[in-house]
Amino acid sequence: MGYFHDNIERMAGYEPGFQPARTDVVKLNTNENPYPPSPTVIEAIRAVEAERMRRYPDPTAKAFRATAAQVNTVDADNIICCNGGDDLLKTAFIAFCDSTRAAAYPVPTYSLYPVLAKIVGCEVSEIPFDAEFNLPAGLVKTGAALTIVCNPNAPSGSFINVNEIASLADEVKGVVLVDEAYVDFADDNCVRLIKDFDNVMILRSMSKGYSLAGMRFGYGIASKTLIQGLLKVVDSYPVDAVAQAAATAAIKDQQYFKTNIEKVKAERARLTDALRKLGFKVPNSSSNFVLAQCTEPNAGEIYEKLVERDVYVRYFNMPGLDDKLRITVGTSEQNNKLLEVLKGILPQSK
Amino acid sequence: MGYFHDNIERMAGYEPGFQPARTDVVKLNTNENPYPPSPTVIEAIRAVEAERMRRYPDPTAKAFRATAAQVNTVDADNIICCNGGDDLLKTAFIAFCDSTRAAAYPVPTYSLYPVLAKIVGCEVSEIPFDAEFNLPAGLVKTGAALTIVCNPNAPSGSFINVNEIASLADEVKGVVLVDEAYVDFADDNCVRLIKDFDNVMILRSMSKGYSLAGMRFGYGIASKTLIQGLLKVVDSYPVDAVAQAAATAAIKDQQYFKTNIEKVKAERARLTDALRKLGFKVPNSSSNFVLAQCTEPNAGEIYEKLVERDVYVRYFNMPGLDDKLRITVGTSEQNNKLLEVLKGILPQSK
Repeated sequence: MGYFHDNIERMAGYEPGFQPARTDVVKLNTNENPYPPSPTVIEAIRAVEAERMRRYPDPTAKAFRATAAQVNTVDADNIICCNGGDDLLKTAFIAFCDSTRAAAYPVPTYSLYPVLAKIVGCEVSEIPFDAEFNLPAGLVKTGAALTIVCNPNAPSGSFINVNEIASLADEVKGVVLVDEAYVDFADDNCVRLIKDFDNVMILRSMSKGYSLAGMRFGYGIASKTLIQGLLKVVDSYPVDAVAQAAATAAIKDQQYFKTNIEKVKAERARLTDALRKLGFKVPNSSSNFVLAQCTEPNAGEIYEKLVERDVYVRYFNMPGLDDKLRITVGTSEQNNKLLEVLKGILPQSK
Repeated sequence: MGYFHDNIERMAGYEPGFQPARTDVVKLNTNENPYPPSPTVIEAIRAVEAERMRRYPDPTAKAFRATAAQVNTVDADNIICCNGGDDLLKTAFIAFCDSTRAAAYPVPTYSLYPVLAKIVGCEVSEIPFDAEFNLPAGLVKTGAALTIVCNPNAPSGSFINVNEIASLADEVKGVVLVDEAYVDFADDNCVRLIKDFDNVMILRSMSKGYSLAGMRFGYGIASKTLIQGLLKVVDSYPVDAVAQAAATAAIKDQQYFKTNIEKVKAERARLTDALRKLGFKVPNSSSNFVLAQCTEPNAGEIYEKLVERDVYVRYFNMPGLDDKLRITVGTSEQNNKLLEVLKGILPQSK
């Protein structure tokens, strides 16, 4: 018998995107927001006194939940805060799944889901998307205790209509977790479903839309029944006092948030057009990244050449994705640099 | 079939100590350090720029691990950082235990252990301490995949000799997790055991000795084999950028830390004496709290009367503890206030 349980012994860990130590590179590989958080966030962090550090933080982040409830038109009791969206995903796998209770999700999608399934020792049903990333019909028949739909999906950036997710929630017996980490960049979201379906749980992140990837703050929105159960599983003090202050300031400044989102959307449209002109096949994205399909040279080769020129994008060496690059929408300057470097790499531009 | 797996449906969640919103009370109930963190912590937090918040943090907190390695005379690769000690405990239960792999620990002890066992669905062997809180002989024979010794123990404050824990590690086949959340207030610790035993894992917290309960930063020290496996289970970015800056500044300022520890130890000696003079039975504590056994009135009654007078201590209504109060060592002023209020409550002082 090894020290670890068998799944842990056998598994490889999750591989996060490369985080270069240098700051003078064009970093479009981990879907960070290219703009800084609201200035009120910095003010809120600097205003945290030593006494707040000495004491345990508010266990459930009441101040954040009050504002997030207003923004999302739900009750504060419909919200649970976590140490980043990944913490909420792990909490969901622990709460809903085990060796007799499976998870299901369409693929390709966020590569953390199968890792979490191995960690908790549950079976998974991975149902392939079609080429247009429509919701696979087979998803409703898996009998899973937890069905996850990443919407907008990573790494495709595609968005599934809310009515389709409502039908899914209506038909399955288990929980439907809609991973809306990127929803701030989309035109709709599923939060209204929690009023009609007590088996729907929404995941939100402050990392992308609110530029707080460095702070680790995510939250879930669901029926009070689900929230009460999830609270048994999550840590007693999942988010620290400074992160609470930062996230609360960020979500309060809706004007700054909306302005930033519009800037990212405008750059996304420009980047999509420019990549298409360079010969990439780029579907419309509802996220802060685009998935660009390459013809020649192949995606892996372009990726390597970009790295040599200090431009980082994400390449997934797996079936269905190994001919594509996932490119985070950056600032105008970053996107221009990427496009310029790409022109130097691609044969038709030589 | 419910939404949650059966253990979650059945269980009650962990009940953390009451966190009063008011700051004008004497709060000696959750073992916070009575003194603020090092001034360098505040400086480090205020120096964190917006760019550090926008980007994902260093996944493994390299800067913190480098200093913690020096302080503990281990390699940085022997260290894993977590979102508070509780996060490391949960990670250990997930990594080592499951329905066929049990946990074991002496009782009474930290009340989170059985909650985590239910969350991951593992059996537990709870072996009672004797009245002097010696390591129970039965602990070696449980066959558990994970044996936990809280040392100093909560809520007794008692300390088990490092040689006895070495013998335990030598005799069991599974992992021995020494929960040293309170070890900064003791005269010895088990970190040297990781050089001889690849099944020993030490838990440390920045909450108590370093006054950073509000920041949620804990770490583990173990053989590289254990650390590598634990890294597969813990979140990809478990500690945020600001918490990393704060914890790194705190552990670097060893002089401030040691001065604070000595102050707490001196107050602990004074509080212990004074409580004994008031008629409580108080064993020597190696922690930043004392466990005071009451005769008359009973502990629950004293607890209620203290709350009425804005003094918060911890009362556990469970066998073996329901005649005792766990009292955090506060500042001189706080301890004096507690003692004064106690004198007004206790019959012999009327």
